[in-house]
Amino acid sequence: MAIITLTTDFGEKDHFAGAVKGTIYSEMDDVRIVDISHSISPFHITEASYIIKNAYKCFPKGSIHIIGIDSELTPENKHLAILLDDHYFICANNGILTLIASEIKPEKIVEINIHNTVESNFPVLDVFVRVACHIARGGTLEVIGKTIENLRYLKEIEPYLNSEKNQIIGHVLYIDNYGNVVTNINRKLFENTGKGRNFTITARTARFQQIYETYSDAINFKLEKEKREEDGKKLAIFNSAGYIELAVYKSNPSTVGSASTLFGLELRDTITVKFE
Amino acid sequence: MAIITLTTDFGEKDHFAGAVKGTIYSEMDDVRIVDISHSISPFHITEASYIIKNAYKCFPKGSIHIIGIDSELTPENKHLAILLDDHYFICANNGILTLIASEIKPEKIVEINIHNTVESNFPVLDVFVRVACHIARGGTLEVIGKTIENLRYLKEIEPYLNSEKNQIIGHVLYIDNYGNVVTNINRKLFENTGKGRNFTITARTARFQQIYETYSDAINFKLEKEKREEDGKKLAIFNSAGYIELAVYKSNPSTVGSASTLFGLELRDTITVKFE
Amino acid sequence: MAIITLTTDFGEKDHFAGAVKGTIYSEMDDVRIVDISHSISPFHITEASYIIKNAYKCFPKGSIHIIGIDSELTPENKHLAILLDDHYFICANNGILTLIASEIKPEKIVEINIHNTVESNFPVLDVFVRVACHIARGGTLEVIGKTIENLRYLKEIEPYLNSEKNQIIGHVLYIDNYGNVVTNINRKLFENTGKGRNFTITARTARFQQIYETYSDAINFKLEKEKREEDGKKLAIFNSAGYIELAVYKSNPSTVGSASTLFGLELRDTITVKFE
Repeated sequence: MAIITLTTDFGEKDHFAGAVKGTIYSEMDDVRIVDISHSISPFHITEASYIIKNAYKCFPKGSIHIIGIDSELTPENKHLAILLDDHYFICANNGILTLIASEIKPEKIVEINIHNTVESNFPVLDVFVRVACHIARGGTLEVIGKTIENLRYLKEIEPYLNSEKNQIIGHVLYIDNYGNVVTNINRKLFENTGKGRNFTITARTARFQQIYETYSDAINFKLEKEKREEDGKKLAIFNSAGYIELAVYKSNPSTVGSASTLFGLELRDTITVKFE
Repeated sequence: MAIITLTTDFGEKDHFAGAVKGTIYSEMDDVRIVDISHSISPFHITEASYIIKNAYKCFPKGSIHIIGIDSELTPENKHLAILLDDHYFICANNGILTLIASEIKPEKIVEINIHNTVESNFPVLDVFVRVACHIARGGTLEVIGKTIENLRYLKEIEPYLNSEKNQIIGHVLYIDNYGNVVTNINRKLFENTGKGRNFTITARTARFQQIYETYSDAINFKLEKEKREEDGKKLAIFNSAGYIELAVYKSNPSTVGSASTLFGLELRDTITVKFE
Repeated sequence: MAIITLTTDFGEKDHFAGAVKGTIYSEMDDVRIVDISHSISPFHITEASYIIKNAYKCFPKGSIHIIGIDSELTPENKHLAILLDDHYFICANNGILTLIASEIKPEKIVEINIHNTVESNFPVLDVFVRVACHIARGGTLEVIGKTIENLRYLKEIEPYLNSEKNQIIGHVLYIDNYGNVVTNINRKLFENTGKGRNFTITARTARFQQIYETYSDAINFKLEKEKREEDGKKLAIFNSAGYIELAVYKSNPSTVGSASTLFGLELRDTITVKFE
């Protein structure tokens, strides 16, 4: 059965997501719709880029991913359908695939041209759904658009590596549900740059000289529970998405605090890694 | 496959929505359950009325819509099953279908009478699900209730048109995820009253003399980006649901603000349209 | 079709829930995934225990319930697969099934041992999904773990009954979407202890001497609407989950207030029932 996923900033309350699902089921019965997230911050392209990158690859090859963020058609914000890593993405050309496309080259990109005289202020419903169902029924991209060569790319989403190759200057890319702070520095860049050297991660006043593989690696379970200093333990890990993440062990943003609040870090704040 | 949709004020956290879905799947296997919204404000009938109006019509004919808001059975709040526009609605008789039924006459309304001795404090689970599955299996409304003629109707949800027919006095019907302010004045009333005359929309200190068809129509893309005054651009549009909406271009309630906060408008605040 | 439910503290925004669903659909096509809740407070085991208890039993026998809260594998927090009441549960051995297992004895408990060399910081995705799909395909628990006898049990979740058997000292177990305060005192304990005696429930300054069966039982509908004192009516009921709940009639936490705010009650605050 075809799978269509939804990643939007519609929120959990409004009728938009329900309307999109209803429209898909009205077009075709034999389809599975899966919500990835409707809680992306409004118009927040980097948040969406991080979410879709980490979710899409878990789905079966051939899945169709509708991304409904900043999707109003303008002369500068065209609608695209993209084949990449054997997955289909339908979104606006606003840089939202930057994190994926910087690692994997798209096989095919088309600029959707089925708008004709359709004047729509709900493009996800009126355009993206139609394209998704076309693909789900086995239709080709060429039928619904004209091929283009390049995606718009958000250069600012990437960390900066100095010329001596001993310092990475990154920033906060995402803050997750636990208040953990995800940086834009991934394992590959870290390891290729560091080559095993000692290092210090600096984020405001916080310092880390070790990166764990799991949260609980930071806890010494051979000690008795009282001596372990579990609560509020600050740590850096490679998170499950492969990025350096600054975390607090079993944090809770609404009670004891989280990495974001305890370190005073917000989106786009600077994080540096200095190698010795 | 039968479709049952859910629109409730259960919230995203509690077990209620999960329990309802489990109960439906326990009653029948061959059914598709679609969440429209579980984040209606508690007991908020006009919010629910707006959400269900805009979502239901996207679903295939024959879909069954459970509306679980203010649904406890009392002498004044009977349970209904309604056939309207080839869709089925199961809800309490509390005015929740006002926005739909003011445009399309119900084909059939029955007052559900399967309660017998069932004393329930979870009527969506105990009554609405059973009725929905009955309908999904092809059962008729007559079997589960007795026909009545009229729905309860919330007169106050409608705008007021003065006798000179040059002024519409409406109010804020809904505030969406982007903080945009949806009025209860729809395109039909506006156009039938205005007949092309010039007009001024007034909402507190804000004034609008033009209504756009899409958000980006308010932006002059022929200008260079710096000269366009995109950020914080205030505009009125006919939204995708067909209502006049006061919006801020690419607003974000949690950062730069939104129409609701910038105009100081809350639910039920007055909006007027004056024609020249 | 096999049913896999998800109860987690992933939140509505992050990619975690979407990634889990994608992984399940990649493993098998013929499965139905149902969200119970992703909004459990981070690491909050008693909240999760309450939610899963009330939701699971509505699903068909044989359903598989993944509970992704505090699920990182440590020497003290092993992964389990459990058969109980003809349902399967996959979770960490952190006491999360306390409320269910205190009423119904598990038929079989295995400690999952498929981890081998897998070092994972996303155990729900890497371990729980694989176990769930194994069970969904008809696999046995013995294949994926070794049998153990006892679950970890949170003794503190239970109310205290004094030796004279005339007082129950409980606490706030959960606060629901309407701000209603759910105690950990269930109908069975109340009735077995009280045996029909008069009683007083005390929660801070609030007192109740009657427990209703439904919210509207507290309202006298024979009176005219103005005389009924509906608004803000405080009451105790046996809620649909069978627990004593302190409620405010048609409360709304974000406007008129709720039982939680009006009574000044938070999670773990003391509630007593004294019998005469």
